Amino acid sequence: MQEEEFDAYLITSGVSIFYFSNFYHMVTERPAALLVEPDGKPIFMGPLLEADHLREQTKVVGDSYTYLDYPGEEHPMKKFAKWLSELGYEKAKIGTDNPSGAGGTMGYVGDPLNEILDEADFVKDGQFIWDMRLIKSKEEIALIKESAKWGNLAHQYLQEYTTPGLWDLEISLMATLDATSAMKRTLGSDYITVKGTRAASAGFRGQVGWKSAIPHSISINRFIQEGDVLVTGAGADVGGYGSELERTMIVGNPNSKQERLFKVMMRAQNAAVDALKPGTTCADVDKAANKVFREAGYWDLVRHHTGHGIGIQGHEPPYLDQGNDKELEPGMVVSIEPGIYELGSAGYRHSDTLLVTQGGCEWLTYYPRDLDSLTII
Amino acid sequence: MQEEEFDAYLITSGVSIFYFSNFYHMVTERPAALLVEPDGKPIFMGPLLEADHLREQTKVVGDSYTYLDYPGEEHPMKKFAKWLSELGYEKAKIGTDNPSGAGGTMGYVGDPLNEILDEADFVKDGQFIWDMRLIKSKEEIALIKESAKWGNLAHQYLQEYTTPGLWDLEISLMATLDATSAMKRTLGSDYITVKGTRAASAGFRGQVGWKSAIPHSISINRFIQEGDVLVTGAGADVGGYGSELERTMIVGNPNSKQERLFKVMMRAQNAAVDALKPGTTCADVDKAANKVFREAGYWDLVRHHTGHGIGIQGHEPPYLDQGNDKELEPGMVVSIEPGIYELGSAGYRHSDTLLVTQGGCEWLTYYPRDLDSLTII
Repeated sequence: MQEEEFDAYLITSGVSIFYFSNFYHMVTERPAALLVEPDGKPIFMGPLLEADHLREQTKVVGDSYTYLDYPGEEHPMKKFAKWLSELGYEKAKIGTDNPSGAGGTMGYVGDPLNEILDEADFVKDGQFIWDMRLIKSKEEIALIKESAKWGNLAHQYLQEYTTPGLWDLEISLMATLDATSAMKRTLGSDYITVKGTRAASAGFRGQVGWKSAIPHSISINRFIQEGDVLVTGAGADVGGYGSELERTMIVGNPNSKQERLFKVMMRAQNAAVDALKPGTTCADVDKAANKVFREAGYWDLVRHHTGHGIGIQGHEPPYLDQGNDKELEPGMVVSIEPGIYELGSAGYRHSDTLLVTQGGCEWLTYYPRDLDSLTII
Repeated sequence: MQEEEFDAYLITSGVSIFYFSNFYHMVTERPAALLVEPDGKPIFMGPLLEADHLREQTKVVGDSYTYLDYPGEEHPMKKFAKWLSELGYEKAKIGTDNPSGAGGTMGYVGDPLNEILDEADFVKDGQFIWDMRLIKSKEEIALIKESAKWGNLAHQYLQEYTTPGLWDLEISLMATLDATSAMKRTLGSDYITVKGTRAASAGFRGQVGWKSAIPHSISINRFIQEGDVLVTGAGADVGGYGSELERTMIVGNPNSKQERLFKVMMRAQNAAVDALKPGTTCADVDKAANKVFREAGYWDLVRHHTGHGIGIQGHEPPYLDQGNDKELEPGMVVSIEPGIYELGSAGYRHSDTLLVTQGGCEWLTYYPRDLDSLTII
């Protein structure tokens, strides 16, 4: 704030509010924001239904200014403008991630804050928040490591429960239930999910059989069958942080084509991990994986880049993409997940979560990766 | 498009792309859009990993223009600009829900499309999509009704499984698993979830015991106890559409205060439903519920308005708020869910999904609402 000479800073993104205050809320059509002043505790502006929630979750935030609901007899954004004026910012220079004051989801309609409070100078300057989030603190890394442990358990159950004749969603819910129960009973009364409906979870997101060839398939309408290639996913919510563990599993003995593609995918993942260290770039990591696919003659089966950052969000910067020349630094946490996808046949992808360290990198997920361990007979 | 004399229309919101094309995808940092031209099928522009997915899901969309990944050696938004130029829109007047061309989630960074293609005239005009979505078609109403049936089953299991000593997330996952299994086995091979990880589901979102007083509590760290007031939620994904069913349940015999607050909440819900008919306004419905709370002396326990539209999204217009003078029309589908919340004690809210009809309204959810039926002994 000092560098840019802002009088105050207004944070409107739900994820950024959590990052700075430890208050996590369900983002809806109702606008919410955190006003950070040069001195004192940040001020919350938002819907009344979050006021008690906020006080219960965090001691970091000071006063709350609330409106009953959206759109209200007086529009929330007009109230935001009024509150900012009352606080002395009517003609101030205010940094913000969003000069309009609201995300605008779920059919939200409203005049932009910077037009209502037109004598103030709202300066869009949200990039520094993403830059801060790139490098994880020791505390954040500890949360992600703990997440990886419970994702491992959820995945173990997922593999054990995978059987022809069951729907993938059933297997996913069985594994998620048992891992969630075990996690709660292990961690005890201190443990709470920040984001909600699952503690630890595992599933397939529809990447079952021929649909494993569609990276974001979401769902399939049939039960698991002998011969299916499956691409899984598992993780856990620890303090609002997550990890990513994905495996390619095969139901029944793999045929020679399945084995060949599986092994190329593994080589690409190994090559990317070898390239993951301080001083190399995001592009270098992606190119290392892509080189393996190209040389094996499978470049036409690639559908996405090698990985992404992970932390509060499932996808966040840095993106491990051949077009991203961002340098890797210790403290970055990323997924490494090169994949190949043959439409009409199957897709192959493992994803692991790794921490960039001074000396190279450290695997935070540790589920077996070899074909034998992932064959379901 | 004709009214506004646009040469073409660019849809960038994931939900709107689904509404117009039946193609549902997981929205990430990777921009995607649908270009609607005066003649012919809409054109998809987006990440390569969605190309096969799109072709598998819909016949409505024609050509696909794809980029390998974000940010790419050439930025996706530059490709969007290039493709629009190739298609003859370099200097066109293009209507769009978002002139910048991308939602900007998950740390996305990029120059706005309307600055890259600066000779074209991008006109923000997205409101008509929300206006179209306000009135549900017969087909949409049928999907929401089917959703309500399976939400009812999930809620039935949730109530049966609710027992002191279990964590609310466990009960939720047990009910969700059994309802999802039953739904799939009933509807058969045609049935697929559009949005993913659950077919039918039920849960508490943390509104357990004293935390039932926090409307969007998300989670609690302890197990269910005798004496808890619980606020539930259930629904199901049918063709990408949902419904909302919420109930206040009490573990053990209700005390006189619990009974009193429960009954006031019920009276407010009844009053709101009585006001729900064509010709009255969204504000009228909210005011009818608020009047009950005021007259009972509980206005200070109100934390939100009476309800919201529902369909593809869990919250969508129209918002049943005292400040919204929108008139109700047949075909609107809304939740009716006035609530009261006493911090340190408990919260009380039922939510039902209702259809506005020519003659008044129709209940689409039908789970018992009376205290006896919702007491768990």
